[in-house]
Amino acid sequence: MTVQVYVNDISRHWLDPLERGFQYGDGLFETMAVRQGELPHWLYHWERLVAGCERLNIPVPDQAALEDKITRLIRQQAKAVVKLIVSRGNSTRGYRIPPKQNPTQVLYLSPWLDYPAHYAEQGIHLKVCRTPLGMNPALAGIKHLNRLEQILARNEWQDEKFQEGVMLNTSGHVIEGTMSNIFWVKAGQLYTPDLTECGVLGITRQRVLEKTKENGMDVRIVRQHIDSLYEADEVFMTNSLFGIWPVQSIEDRQYTAGPITQLLQNLVN
Amino acid sequence: MTVQVYVNDISRHWLDPLERGFQYGDGLFETMAVRQGELPHWLYHWERLVAGCERLNIPVPDQAALEDKITRLIRQQAKAVVKLIVSRGNSTRGYRIPPKQNPTQVLYLSPWLDYPAHYAEQGIHLKVCRTPLGMNPALAGIKHLNRLEQILARNEWQDEKFQEGVMLNTSGHVIEGTMSNIFWVKAGQLYTPDLTECGVLGITRQRVLEKTKENGMDVRIVRQHIDSLYEADEVFMTNSLFGIWPVQSIEDRQYTAGPITQLLQNLVN
Repeated sequence: MTVQVYVNDISRHWLDPLERGFQYGDGLFETMAVRQGELPHWLYHWERLVAGCERLNIPVPDQAALEDKITRLIRQQAKAVVKLIVSRGNSTRGYRIPPKQNPTQVLYLSPWLDYPAHYAEQGIHLKVCRTPLGMNPALAGIKHLNRLEQILARNEWQDEKFQEGVMLNTSGHVIEGTMSNIFWVKAGQLYTPDLTECGVLGITRQRVLEKTKENGMDVRIVRQHIDSLYEADEVFMTNSLFGIWPVQSIEDRQYTAGPITQLLQNLVN
Repeated sequence: MTVQVYVNDISRHWLDPLERGFQYGDGLFETMAVRQGELPHWLYHWERLVAGCERLNIPVPDQAALEDKITRLIRQQAKAVVKLIVSRGNSTRGYRIPPKQNPTQVLYLSPWLDYPAHYAEQGIHLKVCRTPLGMNPALAGIKHLNRLEQILARNEWQDEKFQEGVMLNTSGHVIEGTMSNIFWVKAGQLYTPDLTECGVLGITRQRVLEKTKENGMDVRIVRQHIDSLYEADEVFMTNSLFGIWPVQSIEDRQYTAGPITQLLQNLVN
């Protein structure tokens, strides 16, 4: 797959090995869907990026300059994916943040990956991952570059039987997928996990919360064990690239794409 | 500060932005003291690196080739620091580990940082960090590249009043320093934290455990709150570069470099 890479303001395919993003995972990222030369949900991504910069004490990028750069990059693209990494910049040694920071911006433009249509229609198959998510409010919610937990979880299956895995925290509460957020429905009530101690505040998750509110639907933000998923009537996953995918099975438990999932697909996708 | 950088087999000062070490912190590192053209504790570092590779499913480097490369790099160095990063290599998108991995090795050779002699004699001043360490047995012990917790903790102070900070896990147990391990003595008994749920298994910590065993001294591996430090008679920190530093104060509590700390400095440094 051909990926175009831009580091700071130029088309450049190299990074300094002193970059703290490489030495420590010291940075943030956003992965965004391009549609007809635009990023439909850019402002949601921008706001999460700013929140991440503030949490990690990374200078917030110049918004207009970044928007201009991305706009020029994607202008000709009908359907593609843009990934943005904001990394703290170089340092020679030690965790201490340099007094003068000079963050690095990397943009990756890559082709759209066409997912099979039945993922969005009949749904996907979920594995329950053994790798837990550690809990740390200092890092929860933001989309930072420390992703070893997700890598270990995603590495738990190699076959094509599962399209995603659900991760629990070290207390056994359901948190999210390896690359997506999770919702479920029981007796007409929508639920999604509390992400104040771990997990990523996904853009599509946020849009589901907004759309349900606009439509008078209540979503409970909860800390619940895996049993809640097994007892659910509907389960679905959200992600900025695929939108909403119903869940067809979790291990041996079967589900059908139900009416609330389908309603939200219409509202959000 | 001038740092020499070698990527794989050549003197090269660039990395591919698709490197997973940069995208996800997907790799491991070792920071090692050079003495008279040698790495005195290389085998300890090597063993931890191998354990890390096995945990993260990264192919273990060729030992002889790596040793040969490092030997050539440090031959002329009387006193210096070598840092090695083993990163998983490139991938275009997603957490999934590529079926064919091609890990990247980066070596950094940098000048020795001379610490003031009084750190090793009278001791250092410790801050108690607010940033907690998340608990996750899947990542505990190894020296991986996901270091945002340490960066946030080290960023809690900017003045020169403190030389190190002590970190607690999310249950409030004492775990380690931001860049070191911690021991304490109470009524002649040595203690150090259990690191099965978080923290890095430091090389000097391991050497202290070996030397104490050889000398018939017992060390209890414990889960204890910060009060245990305040009630201790002696506290010291260990690290591969500075060896053993006594602790002179933790916030308002004062200590003196006691006899057990001094004995271990003689045995280990």
